[in-house]
Amino acid sequence: MKIERVDFFYLRMPEVLDIGDGSQDALLVRVQAAGLEGWGECEASPLTSLAAYICPMSHSACKPVRYAVEGMELNSAADIYKIKQKVHEHCFDLLQADHTYSGIDIALWDLLGKAQQEPVYHLLGYKKTYPKMPYASQLFGITPQETYLKAKESRSQGYAAVKFGWGPIGKGTVAQDVAQFQAAREGLGKDAYLMVDIGTYWGENVQEAQKRLQALKDVQVYWLEEPFANLALTPYRALAVSLPKVALAAGEGCNNYVQAEAMISYGGLQFIQIDTGRIGGISAAKRVCDLSQTKGIKYVNHTFTSHLALSASLQPFIGIEPDFICEYPVEPKDLATSITKNKIERDQEGLIHLTESHGLGVEIDTKRLAKYLVDVEIKIEGKAFYHSSSF
Amino acid sequence: MKIERVDFFYLRMPEVLDIGDGSQDALLVRVQAAGLEGWGECEASPLTSLAAYICPMSHSACKPVRYAVEGMELNSAADIYKIKQKVHEHCFDLLQADHTYSGIDIALWDLLGKAQQEPVYHLLGYKKTYPKMPYASQLFGITPQETYLKAKESRSQGYAAVKFGWGPIGKGTVAQDVAQFQAAREGLGKDAYLMVDIGTYWGENVQEAQKRLQALKDVQVYWLEEPFANLALTPYRALAVSLPKVALAAGEGCNNYVQAEAMISYGGLQFIQIDTGRIGGISAAKRVCDLSQTKGIKYVNHTFTSHLALSASLQPFIGIEPDFICEYPVEPKDLATSITKNKIERDQEGLIHLTESHGLGVEIDTKRLAKYLVDVEIKIEGKAFYHSSSF
Repeated sequence: MKIERVDFFYLRMPEVLDIGDGSQDALLVRVQAAGLEGWGECEASPLTSLAAYICPMSHSACKPVRYAVEGMELNSAADIYKIKQKVHEHCFDLLQADHTYSGIDIALWDLLGKAQQEPVYHLLGYKKTYPKMPYASQLFGITPQETYLKAKESRSQGYAAVKFGWGPIGKGTVAQDVAQFQAAREGLGKDAYLMVDIGTYWGENVQEAQKRLQALKDVQVYWLEEPFANLALTPYRALAVSLPKVALAAGEGCNNYVQAEAMISYGGLQFIQIDTGRIGGISAAKRVCDLSQTKGIKYVNHTFTSHLALSASLQPFIGIEPDFICEYPVEPKDLATSITKNKIERDQEGLIHLTESHGLGVEIDTKRLAKYLVDVEIKIEGKAFYHSSSF
Repeated sequence: MKIERVDFFYLRMPEVLDIGDGSQDALLVRVQAAGLEGWGECEASPLTSLAAYICPMSHSACKPVRYAVEGMELNSAADIYKIKQKVHEHCFDLLQADHTYSGIDIALWDLLGKAQQEPVYHLLGYKKTYPKMPYASQLFGITPQETYLKAKESRSQGYAAVKFGWGPIGKGTVAQDVAQFQAAREGLGKDAYLMVDIGTYWGENVQEAQKRLQALKDVQVYWLEEPFANLALTPYRALAVSLPKVALAAGEGCNNYVQAEAMISYGGLQFIQIDTGRIGGISAAKRVCDLSQTKGIKYVNHTFTSHLALSASLQPFIGIEPDFICEYPVEPKDLATSITKNKIERDQEGLIHLTESHGLGVEIDTKRLAKYLVDVEIKIEGKAFYHSSSF
């Protein structure tokens, strides 16, 4: 089949707040071919990603992403890799292109799965799927007491793994952070998995991280996430070999395979965290997962929005039994919840599974989403250049 | 002084061709404060970079670049680093932000230099400047004979260093490439510097590169440029230790300091090539230059457009005497030539110099540029959201 049409849909909550909640807007992609449609989601600035899709060509290595997609053949996984390669060749001077292509790539796999009546993970080579243990992501409380209560609440909701991050952590004294770590552990109890996320706050400052290692070890964190800027390999490596040893997790900022490979090979990570909506979609994510297995480290998804994004982020590692932990959107905004009619719900043991439904196995609720749709119109030299589609 | 106004100007040739010539369009930035103005240039997709400047906020780590710039104080170099840090914190999930900020950062240094009546390189800590030897960048000819003639022509124009790249190279047989390398060397004569640029064509394929090493050594290339994708550290490192030894150059694709640091520390490069219009401006470029000196490798600018971009790209390493070679736009389109009234011309020995003029030392020719200005209008929800400025 031939790709007939690609549409982007910019969705937004009536009010977008200056908080660490990435589910306040969304950029969906719909790809149509042969009477079928595939859906994907970019975890990226909607207007900017849209611009990368339609922008006028600057030169042979800075073309709009659409040149590499529209009208292309789509009959096999190899065709998707061909499109991906074409995007790279056309767009390697167009920085945003990877974020834009991510949603397209996800939609292409969904579409191919529907056409071939297979779940995407079959197309990726997985014969069997394994359950994943979702972890709840939480902001640290302003006080340790608040963190303690949040931890207890997550446990009472049935989460056996909880990640705390952002908020005050890393910004005050070591003693303040230690009190927070201890409160989180106390609230969770000793058996739950506890992860701590610094959100790159320390930049390249290894000392700030080292000062907290003993306390992190004492509360038995499963991983310490993003202490430094993405690709700050030397700081990551220095911390990875510091004592006491604490496992490091990072990678959500990678926008292509070679960046993730650099983080794995030179950053000393124990966990590589990949957002399929940023790294170039399912194609790049699966390749990173394959590498993680040969390197003996664990693959984890990075997902904070919809169950479309969740399904897309689980496919690349759903066949890897030992990499059992996964990120799960716990309290997304109504917009993100509205994206799919069906959900990937936790079972009685608190685990999640992918079904054998074709493609990504989620159905998009365009009717419910209509109210969040943002109309975008671009004129160049006074002439209509782009007008966003309706569902 | 306080930053009062920031304007972007999208310039474009009447016709933009699908060729490796990045001077066919441009995105200029003008920053105004206290009756002065500074100018910068993004080496990036204009519409996409513009979108990153104005896009609606998505969440606390995905805000429009303008939030970190407009209204900020600008009285010292420290203020620029503060703005840069703020952009990072606001925009680390907005991929295009680094390309957008690059032009702003350049304009901030220009403005600060004018306000303090100093050339930018003084503000960067250089007391003395050194001449640079510009190299001419050429596409390989379709045939070795054509390459030979191009090489002779460059020499007759007084260039003592010439880079050939792209075109057929790397895509055919080894024998075909060897004939091209030899033709280039023959045309240049034995004393000129010859560089070869693969333009990332081999992706991650080390073998393709290794097959050409002996021939590259035989024609005494000064460097082999971008054999692989940016940040493909493992292939770069593998090639760097392959025999016969050929010096590797890369880095133009880096969009921040830590990426360049990764290329330097783990990629085995002998030359780090930085485009100030992409890496986050003069601030990031200078930091990379400082690192290159402690690592014992050479810093080279990457510049193919205007003399505004050229001045901005020379400032970070103009005080480093041994790193004497520089890229120089040889045949840019009229648009790029029109950007500055004055030019950084070669002297009788074919060398170029920066003057002691304040800021970047170039004057923008807005009158001549007016005909290339592209009018851009964006509406969101039917309401005016952005309309490009006139000069």
